[in-house]
Amino acid sequence: MKALEQKILKEGTVLPGNVLKVGSFLNQKIDSDFIAEVGREIARLYEGCGVTKILTVESSGIAIAVAAGIALHVPVVFAKKHRSANMPSSVYTASVYSFTHKETYEIAVGNEYIESGDVVLIVDDFLANGNAVRGLMRITEEAGAQLAGCAIAIEKAFQGAGDKLRSEGVRVESLAIIEKMTDSSVEFRAQ
Amino acid sequence: MKALEQKILKEGTVLPGNVLKVGSFLNQKIDSDFIAEVGREIARLYEGCGVTKILTVESSGIAIAVAAGIALHVPVVFAKKHRSANMPSSVYTASVYSFTHKETYEIAVGNEYIESGDVVLIVDDFLANGNAVRGLMRITEEAGAQLAGCAIAIEKAFQGAGDKLRSEGVRVESLAIIEKMTDSSVEFRAQ
Repeated sequence: MKALEQKILKEGTVLPGNVLKVGSFLNQKIDSDFIAEVGREIARLYEGCGVTKILTVESSGIAIAVAAGIALHVPVVFAKKHRSANMPSSVYTASVYSFTHKETYEIAVGNEYIESGDVVLIVDDFLANGNAVRGLMRITEEAGAQLAGCAIAIEKAFQGAGDKLRSEGVRVESLAIIEKMTDSSVEFRAQ
Repeated sequence: MKALEQKILKEGTVLPGNVLKVGSFLNQKIDSDFIAEVGREIARLYEGCGVTKILTVESSGIAIAVAAGIALHVPVVFAKKHRSANMPSSVYTASVYSFTHKETYEIAVGNEYIESGDVVLIVDDFLANGNAVRGLMRITEEAGAQLAGCAIAIEKAFQGAGDKLRSEGVRVESLAIIEKMTDSSVEFRAQ
């Protein structure tokens, strides 16, 4: 998606530790018109695939997931990172190591929100080491649901998880794939 | 908003401690078509008010805020509850006591995401004791921005914060206002 690549080049900043900061349009400030366009692009890629539910993880995945949900007309479910008072008592859980935060946390989804008949599309803002996506895949499997694939805004290909998932037969659609990133340059994979 | 009242009556559950669980359509499963409708209703209420930015707090406010942002064509900024590696170094902060979680936490927004020229619309899923909204109002004030008002999905009027804010001259638009809530019944304010 050319518009996303241009946004990254124009507004993104590379921080120490291979962190790409896109806070000015993807999180924590969200360009609404642009995110709606991202949602429509995800819908275009997965239309006709029978997706019944979009699954993401709080919080930075929610905006993209909701935009995709609106475009695909399917509900969005987000996994929580912290137990809360109004969390269902029966939950599917998975452990996830966060590359950005350098810590392991547990994600949880109420059992009632994903069913065995569901066809799940996993949506997230970033795919780096793939830990969040694999956690969401485990939850999808636990629920006995089918996985349609993953839709990611920005994939950091140099961290390998996207291509590893593809080699395992998982459909991974990333709207921008970064092959190489330095303080002063970002190189995209041609798509 | 009649459609929201009907959703609450049909799908909402009252949990001990005056918690209204709406996880099946507002969080953590989000009915996308419905949330888009909620967004359009918020846009209708605030169109012509010169809103330049929507401000919410992660994570349950994000879906509604994004839907409203898409309908109003303005960016959405969400305050974070936890510091992260890619958080700007200069932030506006406020302390918030959470009714649902029974704890005080700090919310933060990068300075660069709200400017003094902004006209801010605060959006959230719930208004109960008003602590999150007041935290977001303090951040708006700190940034030197103007407040257009608040747009809330569900206000628990019996906890008083909505009417208190209105008596202080703050515009508060709640799509459903609950006057009274028991295990088996929910009573709405006529609007």
